[in-house]
Amino acid sequence: MRNIDDGDAAATAELQALFPRTGKAWVVGITGSPGAGKSTLTNRLIAGYRKEGKKVGVIAVDPTSPFTGGAILGDRIRMQEHATDPGVFIRSLATRGNLGGLSRATGDCIRVMDAMGQDVIIVETVGVGQDEIDIAQMAHTTIVVVVPGMGDDIQAIKAGILEVADLFAVNKADLDGADRTVRELRQMLELRHAVRAVADHDAAHRMLNHGPPAPAAPPAQPEEWEPPILKVVAARDQGIPELLGAVEQHHLWLDATGQRLKKEEARAGMQFVSLLRERLLRNALETLAREQGRLDEVSRRIAQRAEDPYALAEEIAARLDHAS
Amino acid sequence: MRNIDDGDAAATAELQALFPRTGKAWVVGITGSPGAGKSTLTNRLIAGYRKEGKKVGVIAVDPTSPFTGGAILGDRIRMQEHATDPGVFIRSLATRGNLGGLSRATGDCIRVMDAMGQDVIIVETVGVGQDEIDIAQMAHTTIVVVVPGMGDDIQAIKAGILEVADLFAVNKADLDGADRTVRELRQMLELRHAVRAVADHDAAHRMLNHGPPAPAAPPAQPEEWEPPILKVVAARDQGIPELLGAVEQHHLWLDATGQRLKKEEARAGMQFVSLLRERLLRNALETLAREQGRLDEVSRRIAQRAEDPYALAEEIAARLDHAS
Repeated sequence: MRNIDDGDAAATAELQALFPRTGKAWVVGITGSPGAGKSTLTNRLIAGYRKEGKKVGVIAVDPTSPFTGGAILGDRIRMQEHATDPGVFIRSLATRGNLGGLSRATGDCIRVMDAMGQDVIIVETVGVGQDEIDIAQMAHTTIVVVVPGMGDDIQAIKAGILEVADLFAVNKADLDGADRTVRELRQMLELRHAVRAVADHDAAHRMLNHGPPAPAAPPAQPEEWEPPILKVVAARDQGIPELLGAVEQHHLWLDATGQRLKKEEARAGMQFVSLLRERLLRNALETLAREQGRLDEVSRRIAQRAEDPYALAEEIAARLDHAS
Repeated sequence: MRNIDDGDAAATAELQALFPRTGKAWVVGITGSPGAGKSTLTNRLIAGYRKEGKKVGVIAVDPTSPFTGGAILGDRIRMQEHATDPGVFIRSLATRGNLGGLSRATGDCIRVMDAMGQDVIIVETVGVGQDEIDIAQMAHTTIVVVVPGMGDDIQAIKAGILEVADLFAVNKADLDGADRTVRELRQMLELRHAVRAVADHDAAHRMLNHGPPAPAAPPAQPEEWEPPILKVVAARDQGIPELLGAVEQHHLWLDATGQRLKKEEARAGMQFVSLLRERLLRNALETLAREQGRLDEVSRRIAQRAEDPYALAEEIAARLDHAS
């Protein structure tokens, strides 16, 4: 899998060759704050899926150092017990310097493991942010891992990942405060309903004041998935069968409601736009270099306010538009 | 400033008109884990800069909810005391659904505040990830806020933001363990040097085995900036003048070494590429819609493996290339 995250032409050709064989794996995202025990939990899930005879791919998305050009932590220590199992494939991915690079690299890695025949692909991510949300959108089922007693400030993180959660795993549930954490999560899910209701009310109110925007009747809401909240103790291997069962329930629900196709179409669209964007940019930068100078020279002129980046982007784009 | 983060054509025209008046503000990034006290610290820095008679812009980048379409937390409560000061402009930005959207919105917001004449622009971000790194690259000076006793797991976060830190602020330094945190940070900075030395050694080793890649002599390394580590207690207003002094030192250092221009050129290049990318994509999606169907229809065919996204991206890009 060397070079896939470098996005070079050879890797693209390889990915293109693999494409028809993709689309079979179930992708499970695992996300949550540092210290929540995601790696330990991932390890238990690997063991659980292996017991069912499934082949498992694991993608651990790491914070990284630009100095080493890769993951500081490398493949997670706790997963080493599975490293010699030929049914398990583990790969660390590091934050790349370029825009959108990490989510694209993760998407490519998912497709390779999928084509290799892994039945389940677990994608483990740290923290919160745009990347997390992009990556969560690649998963069929996203598990958000929380631990008791993280305090009020952590709520800010939860607010960001609440909507990507298909399941909540309250890990270290043998600690004091686990029940309180479950209760708080339940309240946040209820709050989410309330926020939606307020938004609907606001929309209704605007319509009364400004007249209706004459929309077609909204499509019937698909039956909603209520994210279950499960208590686990990953370090002691407790609650894992129940968690695997909940992932399976979500899988069945997505299949039954047609939401699986919706998710996969959204993912396909994201991937296509990303491919197109990179391909277009490559040409444009070549045109730029031929006509205006290399990017670093152009950047210097922009930084000195000697060149207007908006006008220049328009000009280069217009040059490429002539044919169409 | 309505609509700037929507990236629509009118906003682009406005930003283009403002462009010649940008490039004067000093941009200070503040980042660190939730609970580190970034908002309290930001509040103190605002007060400090106001005492010096400087106009201050604040951009608080928030985790968000796709349901409300904006920040759940809204403008931070702790900054409200400055909300009526005409010399202070506070803006919350939420994570957007689209790739790279948050960093672009932040960049646009910086340019608007810069053109408005704010002398200092403080950009506060939560968490870690690609966005954080992109946003940190927009700042002249990045302050990483840490608190004592966050435990070993937090080191994973630190690894990701270590390299973007120009200054470390150990907040809540009246807590037990503050000295230990300072010591650990110092060790991590030393480790960074060691990692670099190893990388150099590896490169030398590869060269011995495979022969030299005949590079030109590397340019002389610029004198390095050693990130200072400062203890502060933001809640009690302790250590703030020293922190402001360290930001000023870094400012002087960047000016003296020419690194400021380097940073600004890199930022200009990032912005230009982002503008070009979006502009190109808009055209390409129009061409796509005309010739192949709307993006959602194309996405459906890709998800069904009835269409090869690689070949299609190539085809659309080639259509747009003809003119050049």
